[in-house]
Amino acid sequence: MAKQEDQFKKVISHAKEYGYIFPSSEIYDGLSAVYDYGQKGVELKKNIREYWWKAMVQMHENIVGLDSAIFMHPTTWKASGHVDAFNDPLIDNKDSKKRYRADVLVEDHTAKIEAKIEKEVTKAAKRFGDAFDKDQFMATNPRVLRYQEEINTILKRLGSSLEKEDLADVKALIEELGIADPETGSKNWTDVKQFNLMFGTKLGASADSAMDLYLRPETAQGIFVNFLNVQKSGRMKIPFGIAQTGKAFRNEIVARQFIFRMREFEQMEMQFFIKPGTQKEWYDYWKEMRLKWHLSLGMGADNYRYHDHEKLAHYADAAADIEFKFPFGFKELEGIHSRTDFDLAKHEEFSGKKLQYFDPEENKSYTPYVLETSIGLDRMFLAVFSNALQEETLENGSTRVVLRIPSVLAPTKVAVLPLVKKDGLPEVARKIVDDLKWDMSVDYDEKDAVGRRYRRQDAAGTPFCITVDHETLEDDTVTLRHRDTMEQKRVKISELRGLISEEISMSSWLKKIDAAS
Amino acid sequence: MAKQEDQFKKVISHAKEYGYIFPSSEIYDGLSAVYDYGQKGVELKKNIREYWWKAMVQMHENIVGLDSAIFMHPTTWKASGHVDAFNDPLIDNKDSKKRYRADVLVEDHTAKIEAKIEKEVTKAAKRFGDAFDKDQFMATNPRVLRYQEEINTILKRLGSSLEKEDLADVKALIEELGIADPETGSKNWTDVKQFNLMFGTKLGASADSAMDLYLRPETAQGIFVNFLNVQKSGRMKIPFGIAQTGKAFRNEIVARQFIFRMREFEQMEMQFFIKPGTQKEWYDYWKEMRLKWHLSLGMGADNYRYHDHEKLAHYADAAADIEFKFPFGFKELEGIHSRTDFDLAKHEEFSGKKLQYFDPEENKSYTPYVLETSIGLDRMFLAVFSNALQEETLENGSTRVVLRIPSVLAPTKVAVLPLVKKDGLPEVARKIVDDLKWDMSVDYDEKDAVGRRYRRQDAAGTPFCITVDHETLEDDTVTLRHRDTMEQKRVKISELRGLISEEISMSSWLKKIDAAS
Repeated sequence: MAKQEDQFKKVISHAKEYGYIFPSSEIYDGLSAVYDYGQKGVELKKNIREYWWKAMVQMHENIVGLDSAIFMHPTTWKASGHVDAFNDPLIDNKDSKKRYRADVLVEDHTAKIEAKIEKEVTKAAKRFGDAFDKDQFMATNPRVLRYQEEINTILKRLGSSLEKEDLADVKALIEELGIADPETGSKNWTDVKQFNLMFGTKLGASADSAMDLYLRPETAQGIFVNFLNVQKSGRMKIPFGIAQTGKAFRNEIVARQFIFRMREFEQMEMQFFIKPGTQKEWYDYWKEMRLKWHLSLGMGADNYRYHDHEKLAHYADAAADIEFKFPFGFKELEGIHSRTDFDLAKHEEFSGKKLQYFDPEENKSYTPYVLETSIGLDRMFLAVFSNALQEETLENGSTRVVLRIPSVLAPTKVAVLPLVKKDGLPEVARKIVDDLKWDMSVDYDEKDAVGRRYRRQDAAGTPFCITVDHETLEDDTVTLRHRDTMEQKRVKISELRGLISEEISMSSWLKKIDAAS
Repeated sequence: MAKQEDQFKKVISHAKEYGYIFPSSEIYDGLSAVYDYGQKGVELKKNIREYWWKAMVQMHENIVGLDSAIFMHPTTWKASGHVDAFNDPLIDNKDSKKRYRADVLVEDHTAKIEAKIEKEVTKAAKRFGDAFDKDQFMATNPRVLRYQEEINTILKRLGSSLEKEDLADVKALIEELGIADPETGSKNWTDVKQFNLMFGTKLGASADSAMDLYLRPETAQGIFVNFLNVQKSGRMKIPFGIAQTGKAFRNEIVARQFIFRMREFEQMEMQFFIKPGTQKEWYDYWKEMRLKWHLSLGMGADNYRYHDHEKLAHYADAAADIEFKFPFGFKELEGIHSRTDFDLAKHEEFSGKKLQYFDPEENKSYTPYVLETSIGLDRMFLAVFSNALQEETLENGSTRVVLRIPSVLAPTKVAVLPLVKKDGLPEVARKIVDDLKWDMSVDYDEKDAVGRRYRRQDAAGTPFCITVDHETLEDDTVTLRHRDTMEQKRVKISELRGLISEEISMSSWLKKIDAAS
């Protein structure tokens, strides 16, 4: 755990040092759970977004895009259920005036019991040495079993109270467990209240005409309300999909883990409209397809796993997450949800408009079912970045920090380095920059010894370095160095574009999706 | 004027019919001055954004990108002046409870006087026939001169009252002119009050810890507060620029003209940090460069003009607009502003942090000056789209509606059409789609006669059509048709990618920027 935390801290500081992610409004001491993407970060984010977009929209004849506004008519959120049910249970401490998520307080309490179990395990492991069998110990030790039982009872009661919206019982649970304000130790709690996670604002200036608006908490609804506009103007036939990327906002009480859970974040969602009854088949299809997309990036199959939901949201008849191994463990990266006709039917109910599709093959109209794939762009960024950051010991014993971002996503594709700042080498290097920049993002770097520049580009995530030296002046060749292998090859200047293009081109990488299995 | 309005209406309905722009939340009867981009619109918008990004960031070694959050620390907007001075003067009618922009009421009043002048001109033109000299008439007719004088007096007084923030005098002016509520005729007005245009929201849930936030009214400030983070982590040397695209929000009272002025909109801004004293030179440079960018799209040099500001904003020492000929006349499309050190100095003052650059050549530190280029992405979209929509009469007397979007920006690059839906033609057509889709956005269309499909693709803005016919089965050739000229050429299937790529590739178009003059 300590090692994980350590690695996570390195991720955060490296992200800042190399211009990937800055704390928002840092000169004003920051804004909690909001981050800005720096000069490298913006390019990585753009490339991830584009790689998703091409895979979903450009590759699929029956998937088109959309860019709906953040502001939507407020009735949208009545229909979607967000006004009534998009809440967190909050509790205030009367003495400290601090506010907490009631469920998180209880979960933190069970985490402490969990820690006691860990302590027993460590003690026993020391006592029994090599003979220690952890599984057996956990299954038989009376103290551990008692702790485990205690945790289960607490979590079961919490779950059932939340489900029944019995907030009084959540408070009773907190009091029975003797949970105190973690900052002050006070046990003087208010009642538990539901708090809506949507950010509100007001449109228009006049007192009587101002309209209460919400910042959208998800992009999906923009797709649903435009379903017929897109279907008709695009002459789409079921099955077809609408894909969208864009900002969403949630007023999280406990936002943490860097860019994993932010108050302002970006989603990449695709809603696939299908004939009722075919949802199982499409659910399986998209579960597989989306994993293939991830695998095509070559970030290690072991870093992904499915998590099938047992408890389903009110709108879903099947749901699974693709989880990724973040520095803080396996967590949700993407969700695949079979949403039935829940959303379209609700919008029909609240708008009074039919949102149906006339199926020419069946010769009848119906409200389509929906299969959703939903991934957080910022989470995907964190997955790529944290997985890429590696520290390795070289043959000569020195340490190298290298950011192994898949070259198709790397912010800067190539750095051109004149060996020395004289003898006409910078001029030749700049000519190479001017030639390559039309087709890729190129850096020019002439400061410090070339070894140091290599290291800097490794840490910045640049997959290729081109070095111009005195030999270049004679035979028009340069050194092409690969970030991942540190392999160097002598190549003709005229071959550079072709060699590099092949390794960074989105289409070559997209072709790996079909190949992945 | 009637013809202009007519053309503008056609633009709006064509945008909806072909999936470019839908009214937001249309099933809930829409949300005023908010629009969604449909399946074609999202691609055009993406392409414009990318064309700007490549021209600014990828082509310039000393310009890097940024993606700062919409939420910023509220003190940002104190420092920038938006909390105190980003206001519209509003007045309410006590009887109708309607709210208006006081300055717009006065301007609408002068527009009515303007209309009287037009009437005099029309009358005189009819009377004098071919002998009529409008300029001379305007300069000598006593009635016209009186009207003109009246307009000038009113606008001068309005301008000076607003500048002095003498809102009582603005109200007095409205009353003296006898301006009535345009909807009800009532002259029962409240006082004029300043109304801030920023949308507010609240971050966090606890009563004492909730923070009043604003949705950013411009993206520029995200660049200023990150100036040092980018400069240091990117080792940038002055002069250098930071470019950013992103959403901004303004609670406009009078939002009109389709997507020209929306409450939620997207900006593309670049702040160029320079040595104090060099601002004139860089102002001229960027004025010229930005016009070249526009001209590279080949939308007609006559459609652009500069408008140099005589009255400058509080932060500027020089400013100009690039205006474009929209369906409703020449209007601002992009602004180039010499902002001096106003912004960085204000943030230094409010944050207490030095925002200075150490200049190694001068061997001293200073607060840089800033040169800004700022363009509205939605406005650029409207410029491209409205300019592209043309109706032309063909040689055979029939009418063709064609959307001449520059091919580099076109949402769909090519449509592949089997001549008939049998004899294996669809299969060959789909093979071509599957081959081309890796590198460009491709449509497949097999419904209706091929002539009708051509017209549909013309109206949708697709620059190329490929038709597969029976000859194709024999010799692997197809018909390649150009949208703009309707010219058809027989070409080998194997040549398609090369032929089309050359005409749509961003790098070929970007090269025209240097060539433009």
